[in-house]
Amino acid sequence: MNLNFASDNTGPVAGPILQAIVDANAGAAMPYGNDPWMRQVTEQIRTLFNWPEAEVLLVATGTGANALALAGLVQPWETVLCHRIAHIEEDECGAPEFYTGGAKLVLIDGAQGRIDKDALAAMIARTGGSVHNVQKGALSLTNVTEAGTLYSLDQLGALTGMAKDAGIRTHLDGARFANACAALDCTAAEMVRGFDMVSFGGTKNGCMGVEAIVMRDPAHHWEMQLRRKRAAQLWSKHRFLSAQMLAYLQNDLWLDNARAANAAGQRLAKGLRDIGARMEWEPQANMIFCRLPRSAHDKAQAEAQYYLMDNAEEPLCRLVCDFTKTEAEVDRLLELFAG
Amino acid sequence: MNLNFASDNTGPVAGPILQAIVDANAGAAMPYGNDPWMRQVTEQIRTLFNWPEAEVLLVATGTGANALALAGLVQPWETVLCHRIAHIEEDECGAPEFYTGGAKLVLIDGAQGRIDKDALAAMIARTGGSVHNVQKGALSLTNVTEAGTLYSLDQLGALTGMAKDAGIRTHLDGARFANACAALDCTAAEMVRGFDMVSFGGTKNGCMGVEAIVMRDPAHHWEMQLRRKRAAQLWSKHRFLSAQMLAYLQNDLWLDNARAANAAGQRLAKGLRDIGARMEWEPQANMIFCRLPRSAHDKAQAEAQYYLMDNAEEPLCRLVCDFTKTEAEVDRLLELFAG
Amino acid sequence: MNLNFASDNTGPVAGPILQAIVDANAGAAMPYGNDPWMRQVTEQIRTLFNWPEAEVLLVATGTGANALALAGLVQPWETVLCHRIAHIEEDECGAPEFYTGGAKLVLIDGAQGRIDKDALAAMIARTGGSVHNVQKGALSLTNVTEAGTLYSLDQLGALTGMAKDAGIRTHLDGARFANACAALDCTAAEMVRGFDMVSFGGTKNGCMGVEAIVMRDPAHHWEMQLRRKRAAQLWSKHRFLSAQMLAYLQNDLWLDNARAANAAGQRLAKGLRDIGARMEWEPQANMIFCRLPRSAHDKAQAEAQYYLMDNAEEPLCRLVCDFTKTEAEVDRLLELFAG
Amino acid sequence: MNLNFASDNTGPVAGPILQAIVDANAGAAMPYGNDPWMRQVTEQIRTLFNWPEAEVLLVATGTGANALALAGLVQPWETVLCHRIAHIEEDECGAPEFYTGGAKLVLIDGAQGRIDKDALAAMIARTGGSVHNVQKGALSLTNVTEAGTLYSLDQLGALTGMAKDAGIRTHLDGARFANACAALDCTAAEMVRGFDMVSFGGTKNGCMGVEAIVMRDPAHHWEMQLRRKRAAQLWSKHRFLSAQMLAYLQNDLWLDNARAANAAGQRLAKGLRDIGARMEWEPQANMIFCRLPRSAHDKAQAEAQYYLMDNAEEPLCRLVCDFTKTEAEVDRLLELFAG
Repeated sequence: MNLNFASDNTGPVAGPILQAIVDANAGAAMPYGNDPWMRQVTEQIRTLFNWPEAEVLLVATGTGANALALAGLVQPWETVLCHRIAHIEEDECGAPEFYTGGAKLVLIDGAQGRIDKDALAAMIARTGGSVHNVQKGALSLTNVTEAGTLYSLDQLGALTGMAKDAGIRTHLDGARFANACAALDCTAAEMVRGFDMVSFGGTKNGCMGVEAIVMRDPAHHWEMQLRRKRAAQLWSKHRFLSAQMLAYLQNDLWLDNARAANAAGQRLAKGLRDIGARMEWEPQANMIFCRLPRSAHDKAQAEAQYYLMDNAEEPLCRLVCDFTKTEAEVDRLLELFAG
Repeated sequence: MNLNFASDNTGPVAGPILQAIVDANAGAAMPYGNDPWMRQVTEQIRTLFNWPEAEVLLVATGTGANALALAGLVQPWETVLCHRIAHIEEDECGAPEFYTGGAKLVLIDGAQGRIDKDALAAMIARTGGSVHNVQKGALSLTNVTEAGTLYSLDQLGALTGMAKDAGIRTHLDGARFANACAALDCTAAEMVRGFDMVSFGGTKNGCMGVEAIVMRDPAHHWEMQLRRKRAAQLWSKHRFLSAQMLAYLQNDLWLDNARAANAAGQRLAKGLRDIGARMEWEPQANMIFCRLPRSAHDKAQAEAQYYLMDNAEEPLCRLVCDFTKTEAEVDRLLELFAG
Repeated sequence: MNLNFASDNTGPVAGPILQAIVDANAGAAMPYGNDPWMRQVTEQIRTLFNWPEAEVLLVATGTGANALALAGLVQPWETVLCHRIAHIEEDECGAPEFYTGGAKLVLIDGAQGRIDKDALAAMIARTGGSVHNVQKGALSLTNVTEAGTLYSLDQLGALTGMAKDAGIRTHLDGARFANACAALDCTAAEMVRGFDMVSFGGTKNGCMGVEAIVMRDPAHHWEMQLRRKRAAQLWSKHRFLSAQMLAYLQNDLWLDNARAANAAGQRLAKGLRDIGARMEWEPQANMIFCRLPRSAHDKAQAEAQYYLMDNAEEPLCRLVCDFTKTEAEVDRLLELFAG
Repeated sequence: MNLNFASDNTGPVAGPILQAIVDANAGAAMPYGNDPWMRQVTEQIRTLFNWPEAEVLLVATGTGANALALAGLVQPWETVLCHRIAHIEEDECGAPEFYTGGAKLVLIDGAQGRIDKDALAAMIARTGGSVHNVQKGALSLTNVTEAGTLYSLDQLGALTGMAKDAGIRTHLDGARFANACAALDCTAAEMVRGFDMVSFGGTKNGCMGVEAIVMRDPAHHWEMQLRRKRAAQLWSKHRFLSAQMLAYLQNDLWLDNARAANAAGQRLAKGLRDIGARMEWEPQANMIFCRLPRSAHDKAQAEAQYYLMDNAEEPLCRLVCDFTKTEAEVDRLLELFAG
């Protein structure tokens, strides 16, 4: 029984994706994105996003997708507005600063891991102006948020609308894009409506290692290709990225996996509430932050893997379900917690 | 019949490596290099290189391995001495400059794609000195060279020895490390003797996408880990890099593949000479640069894939054999050229 | 009558400093810091700071001094802890990010423009740890603070002590170093006791354009010289920087100027209180942030120059006195405000 | 007697420029380029260059002017084509790489310190193309060249024309712009005709420390202002840069100084030839590279200052005349050499 709830990147590769890799391994293929699979990937994402002119670049890591996307959106002397707990701020060891040439991440607060509208307005109002200040650049939103919550489509629209009005470009960190679509029961096109550049994640949801950078405006394509190569993110045997992404997109695998992960997450959340766990944030997809008595962890941690985030009496724990989590596994974890 | 001679990155993944990927796809594994396969990779490379304290980092691209290795060796105001046709100079879109924060690649000439000893001595003598100059940093050698030739062990020793005497760190771009070992009939330990940091390539020789950065001095390990993460080269599902590299190292697969590629390359070179091709450089491994009449290409290019490097009457063509090339494929290409 | 209270950089050059520039303009002098004045500058600062091994570099701008100092203290993947309203965060257009290669400025709150001890402790506790995070780097304090307040020697000692205990290097932004020394009635040596690197300002206090970067540990001298040159901050006719700094240090001119500026500032603060101004922060040196009714500004702004920082009913205004401000000028401004 | 021939930056500030500094030191002036002198500087340079829309930024160092100008012209993944001995390559400790974010300086040969037309054409032809290569960026020419020779207007036009045809932007390093104008007996407008961005030098020709970055296209003005601030090159007491430059431009002081320096240089060159010195390059302005027997230096170096560039039997020496060099000083140096 697999009781690894540490992350949705600890799980295996989904069967159809592994099969696609195996299938792609026939004979020669031209390298560096000039493989036939890639053309299909681009076509499918254009349709999915309803961005008929979009261009797509594949990379192997989520940090790479985010950092390259931001580098394509902001100048070194500009800002990236993001939530205080955004992955780009907290978990990428400064990759956005590296890739952008030193742009400044400006942290905005907001309950439930969501950027607060008024806080965003206030920050926009005070950014830029004189030559002494860093200037307005981009807004980066994450959905599913790093708190495991969701922005509704209306909330996304409100925030991206404020950005547009201020001449600020918009980026969606979609490391859990599929989980958000599944949980909101919306289309990908609805999700990306207000954005200029999207990191469309695959790795956390059944791929081996592939993320798509999707740019609405094809004018940036050549520059972004050069940035990808210069960043050492251009694969020679690129077909193995393309084949993963293509399999992920086909037959709604991306959505099915996300639905499975979310269902496990929701079952776990309900069970946790039933045993008295205090939710730190409202768990709306496949990731739960909650507090349980320390004693509950002593037993659970002997058998299950997950992270404790602090040393409080009732420590904050993070529990993530990937697409493979079974009801039995979830229930066993709940049993362990219940003691 | 696979007549793709464009590069050794157009070929498939070797069977044992693909199998290792499939086998690794069982259950959960901790991410970011904390997988059990990685520990074995490090152990095996320490033994192979006879560097008992070495540390190893895996990345997915050769450019990533080179750029990170150089970033770990030089300061932004230092130089990287390399051959005029080095991959880091010609084919990485400035990734070394990006990763090092703007270090200067200083180009050194030399016949047959090898750095000339006297030219190196002269450049070392005139580098640095005052505060107005960029300073001495690292020497980067490539074996197999970008010209398809080899440095002998003595030649490597002479050049790295000059560097050490001048306080210059040393890097080996081993994108075709295995091909060089096979062609020189030497051990890996002999190959790396004079180096501080090695890019040990797998992708061009049967892997899907994995390269090892091997640092002799473990003191740089933590810094290099941070650099890798910051460069967005740290995989979450890292086991799929580890498993590739482990399979590559096991049972001498790396050497066997290289021997096969070299044998095909040598068969092709002999055949080309027999039909009157003029060798641009002495082909010593699996890569051939030669000139044939334009008419020879008209027919060949309809059926086979490879690069023409100029528009001369007898254009310079590059032909690369990977580990899958059969005698029949080589002979068919020769037939096409013979017209 | 000079009613420019916009900044302490709108004023003229002090007489003895201008005279020193004129006097230095005799015959030839070796460039790039190899002038005889510079040797004296270094000696005098060593004595003043009681740092017998210190090395000193001169640059022409305060932003240059800060950015270079920080670049000498932190790696690109490290953090600079500073107050939310620090000059390095708010007023340097990202120069610290540029010079450090993308280090992250981490903002800490605290009343009166001073970093709060507990907030610093909390931030130190949560910085670094895993490879996904930016790491501990430096603490940068500003005295006089950007709020016009002071850190006492005890407060400086407490904060720098916490940094040392955590292995964090320390930087003092001393753009108004002299004003702080004068107001605290302490020695320069007492001020710098807990710091590794100091930006010792001259420009705001009577120089034309010169700031000293003072590094306690001479081991960084050569690296810092290279960084200065590479940053294009190394003057060829360097004697004109040295001569300014030397004149500034001689006969306590730096202290006398600061005392004059502070006295004007304190007279202005008292007068403002007398007419009912609300102090935003406690004005402890030569810079005052306060609120007055909008009507008070209508008249004043026709004759005097200073900045309004917001559009509130009682807008926040910043008033700065440089060393030339006379009692008559201060009193005239107060008259204007009194209406 | 001032026998410092080490550089044209070892000399004093010209009288009218020092006087302008003194005169500017009256009362308050708004900082950061918002001083009244600056408006006049811009107007005068527009007229001088016959660039009616040009914008001008002042900085204090020549390296700063060059590095900022190049950063405004090229992307990090582009190239700067320059002569192998260009100042930006040899004498700026990598400042162009730092300011541009790692652009690659591509070195072109050519006799007499001038870029060879055919070598430029060849390099243009082989730059860029695929995503693996750094791309075409800018051409940087230096006049007076670092060899002390001149490009004629026709030569400048031919090279900049080739650049334009290839979509390459053009930069003039005019550290000795005035000396070139004087020697060619041409107008400034003729000199800048083919360029997009010019470093117009003052420091080597009588200023204390001021260089103008002149951009033909005002569209870059705001970006360049931000780059200057971020690079810590924006002066607070900016009037002292403006006043220098204004005095330099007035009454043809820039030209008169250059004529004086050139005349001294030509007198020295003739004298050197008369005593048998071998000219390394044709001295066409105020800088001479020549070889004399070692014995000639033994005596001269005891009394005069200048650089020896190698250790040959007849060492290469560099002799530079600034605008203050008198006939008596030149003749005394010649006497010393003559022994």
